[in-house]
Amino acid sequence: MAEQNTDSTGVPTVGVALLGMGTVGREVLRILGQAESDFTARIGGRLEVRGIAVSDLSKPREGVDASLLTDDALSLVRRDDIDLVIEVIGGIDYPRTVVLNALRAGKSVVTANKALVAAHAIELSDAADSSGADLFFEAAVAAAIPVVGPLRRSLAGDKVNTVMGIVNGTTNFILDAMDKRGASYDEMLAEATALGYAEADPSADVDGFDAASKAAILASLAFHSPVSFDDVHCEGIRNITAEDIRAAKAAGCTIKLLAICERLVDGQGGESVSARVYPALVPLTHPLATVSDSFNAIFVVAEYAGRLMFYGNGAGGAPTASAVLGDVVAAARNVVHGGRAPGMSTYANLPVADFGEVRTRYHVDMKVQDRPGVLAEVASTFSAHGVSIKTVRQEEDSDGARLVVITHHAAEKDLEDTVEALKKLDAVKNVRSVLRMEGN
Amino acid sequence: MAEQNTDSTGVPTVGVALLGMGTVGREVLRILGQAESDFTARIGGRLEVRGIAVSDLSKPREGVDASLLTDDALSLVRRDDIDLVIEVIGGIDYPRTVVLNALRAGKSVVTANKALVAAHAIELSDAADSSGADLFFEAAVAAAIPVVGPLRRSLAGDKVNTVMGIVNGTTNFILDAMDKRGASYDEMLAEATALGYAEADPSADVDGFDAASKAAILASLAFHSPVSFDDVHCEGIRNITAEDIRAAKAAGCTIKLLAICERLVDGQGGESVSARVYPALVPLTHPLATVSDSFNAIFVVAEYAGRLMFYGNGAGGAPTASAVLGDVVAAARNVVHGGRAPGMSTYANLPVADFGEVRTRYHVDMKVQDRPGVLAEVASTFSAHGVSIKTVRQEEDSDGARLVVITHHAAEKDLEDTVEALKKLDAVKNVRSVLRMEGN
Repeated sequence: MAEQNTDSTGVPTVGVALLGMGTVGREVLRILGQAESDFTARIGGRLEVRGIAVSDLSKPREGVDASLLTDDALSLVRRDDIDLVIEVIGGIDYPRTVVLNALRAGKSVVTANKALVAAHAIELSDAADSSGADLFFEAAVAAAIPVVGPLRRSLAGDKVNTVMGIVNGTTNFILDAMDKRGASYDEMLAEATALGYAEADPSADVDGFDAASKAAILASLAFHSPVSFDDVHCEGIRNITAEDIRAAKAAGCTIKLLAICERLVDGQGGESVSARVYPALVPLTHPLATVSDSFNAIFVVAEYAGRLMFYGNGAGGAPTASAVLGDVVAAARNVVHGGRAPGMSTYANLPVADFGEVRTRYHVDMKVQDRPGVLAEVASTFSAHGVSIKTVRQEEDSDGARLVVITHHAAEKDLEDTVEALKKLDAVKNVRSVLRMEGN
Repeated sequence: MAEQNTDSTGVPTVGVALLGMGTVGREVLRILGQAESDFTARIGGRLEVRGIAVSDLSKPREGVDASLLTDDALSLVRRDDIDLVIEVIGGIDYPRTVVLNALRAGKSVVTANKALVAAHAIELSDAADSSGADLFFEAAVAAAIPVVGPLRRSLAGDKVNTVMGIVNGTTNFILDAMDKRGASYDEMLAEATALGYAEADPSADVDGFDAASKAAILASLAFHSPVSFDDVHCEGIRNITAEDIRAAKAAGCTIKLLAICERLVDGQGGESVSARVYPALVPLTHPLATVSDSFNAIFVVAEYAGRLMFYGNGAGGAPTASAVLGDVVAAARNVVHGGRAPGMSTYANLPVADFGEVRTRYHVDMKVQDRPGVLAEVASTFSAHGVSIKTVRQEEDSDGARLVVITHHAAEKDLEDTVEALKKLDAVKNVRSVLRMEGN
C-alpha cells in the first residue's frame, strides 16, 4: 500500500496515470470526469488523473488539460504521485516495458491490452507479486463482459473444464452476415471494413490472432496454468466459403470462430490443457449459435456450476472503458484501503497438449466419383485410421457426386491422416473442406 | 485480519464453521474434501472445517466426523478457532442472529440465504463494516451464475440502468412447459412438484417471493441504494392461463416471471428505483425469451457496457455450492493475506418509486360486444386516461368478439384507471387479462 495521500477535505486521493488517448483512453477520461462523485463514493477516495501519456504531443486534444500531457510514459509511471496506471496504448514491447516499470515501482496497473497479457502474463504477474501491486485486465477479454473476474473469483471454488467463446466481434459479424445473407467472405469483409468493424489490415481479426490472445488468457485463468499466445493453435476464417455455410446449415449448424480452452484427461487420469482458435460448426440449438452481429459470448462448463454463459459487447470504446473502470475501482480501493487481488494463479501448471491429441468432431466435404463402391472405400479409409463415422450425406451436385461425412470424436492427428489417405483415393476427386464441429 | 494460524508445515490455516447440512451444506463439504489441495493453492492457506451446526444431532450423517457436529450454532461461530462461517441454513430470524454474532465477532460470513440478505442486508453489512469482516452472498442470487460479483466489482465503474432477470427456476420450468406443450398451470405445477423442482408448498416460488428477494438484492447492488424485500412489488404466476400463453404467442411473445430492477428518472432528472416481480410478455427476439426449463438468466443494461446477459443454473446443490465456495476462497484469502471486499454500497441512497409511477407496456385482453362502435369506445377510454395504444387485434371467438390491445409505455396508475373504466363500459363484457410487456 502506497503512503496515504488525502486532499484538503481529508478524502484520500489516488494518483492516476493514463497511458494512451485512443478511443478507449478518451472514453475512460470522459467517464471519469462525468461520474467523479460516484467514483469517489465507490472507492472511498478520489481519483486524480495526474498525467496522460500520448505518442504525439502536437496533436490537438480538446477538453484535456495540456499540462497533463507527456510523451514520456516511462517517467510518468515512476513519478511518486502516481499510484495507479491505466494502460490502453496497445502493442506489446513498449507497453511491456512501461507496465513492468510501473509494477516494479509498486504502482497497480489496469490494462486492456490482450496482446501484452497473452504474451507476458507471468512476467507481469511476477513483477506485481514482488512489489505487492495489483494487475487487472478484465478489458483484455471481451471488453465489458465480465469473464476475467468470474473465472478468477466467482469460479475459484469450482473446477472449470471448458471455456468456449465467440471473442472476436469482427469475425462474428462477417460469419453471421454470410450465414444470414448467403454472401461471400470477401463481400462481408468489405462491409465490415466500411462499417469500421474491421481494420484496413484485418489480419489480427480474420486470421484469429486476436481471439488467440484471448484464448491464452482464458485458458490461464480457467486452468490455473501458464498458457501463452504461442501455445494456442490458431486458424482464421479467410477460407470459409458461402458453400461451407450452406453445408453447415444442411447439418443443422452455423459457423462461428471459436476460442476453445479445454481440460484434457488421458487414460491414466493425467491432465493437460488445450487452447485453440478455429472456425467450427456449432449446432443451432447451442447458445453460442444465437450470438449475432458483433456480439461476443463466452460459454463455460464447470464441474459444479454446470453450464454458464456470459454475453454482451465484446469491443468498442465505451464497453472497454466500462471494464477498465471496474478494474480501476478495485485497484484504487486497494490503494486506499489496503489489500490485494489474487494474482495469476498457475499452481496447477498443467502442460499444453499437442494439437494432434485434441479430440473433436469433423465435417468432411468431398467430391467423389459417381460409381458403385465409393462409399465403401471412403468409409473403410476412415475406419482404418480409427475415425468413426456418425452420419453420411450423399448428394448429386451440378458437377457430380458429393459426400459429406460427420465423424464422432476423433483425434486431430488421426483425422489428418484420414484426410491425407482420402486425397489419395481414386474414388475421391477432392476434399472440398474439413471443418470441426463443437458444442453438442 | 484474525491472528494468523499455521499448521505444522507452516501453511496458514483458516477455521471454518459450516451452518446447515442440507443439500447445499453436504455438497460444500463434499467438494471441500475432494479438492482440498486446490483450495489450499488458490487461497494460500488451508481450510479446516472445525465445526458443523445441524438442527438434529441424532440424524445419522455418513462420512462426517461426529465430533464436529453441534446443535449450537451460536456458540460455534463465536469460537476463537473459527475465522469463517458458511451459512446455508435458510430461514430468516435464526440465521440473522447467528450471522450477526459471527460478523460482530469479526468472522467473515458466506451465505446462500437470499431471504436473509433481502430482509437484513444493511444491518448485516453494518455489522461486517464495524468489525472489518467480509460478508459474501453470491449464491443468494441465481446460484452459480456470477451476478453479485459482476454488479459489485466488474460494473463498479459503470452506471447500471436496468437489471431484468429470470431468477426462479421453478416458475420458468412451469411457464416454459406451458408454452411448449400448451398445458395448464395446474398440470405443470404438478409435474414440477413430481420432478422435485417445486416444494410441497410452492408459494415461495409461484407467488414470486423467492424472485422478490433476489430483486431486492440485485436492485441494492445495481443502484448503490438500500432496497429490501418489502420494497419489491410482487405478483406471481398462479393466474397465468393456457389462454394467456396462446395470446402471448399471437403477439410474438412468451411469458416469463421477471425480476425487474430499474433506474427511473423523472422530468426534473430526479432518480428513483423500481424493483418488481411479475409475469410479463417478452418478445421472442429478446435473449430472455430463449431461457428454457429451469435455467436462470440475468440481463443487465449499463450506460457504457451496454447489454449484458448472464446465463446458467440458478439452483441446485452443486451450482449453489460452487457459488458459496467461490466466496469462501475470496473470504479465506482475506483472512490469510489481509484486505477486505467492498461492503454494501448504498451511498446513492435512491428512493424506491411508488409502483403507480412505473411505466411499462400492457397487453389487455377483453371480451367485447359484437356491435359497431365498440372499438371507438374502448380506444377513447384508453386515450382519456393518457394511455396510448400501439396495436389492436380483434377476432371472433367461439363465444363472441375479443379485443386485444397492446399499449405504448404508460404509468401503472393510468393503466389501472383505464382498466377500471373499461370494466364499466357496456361495450366490454369482461377484461380477461392484463399482462405487462417487457424487453423491447
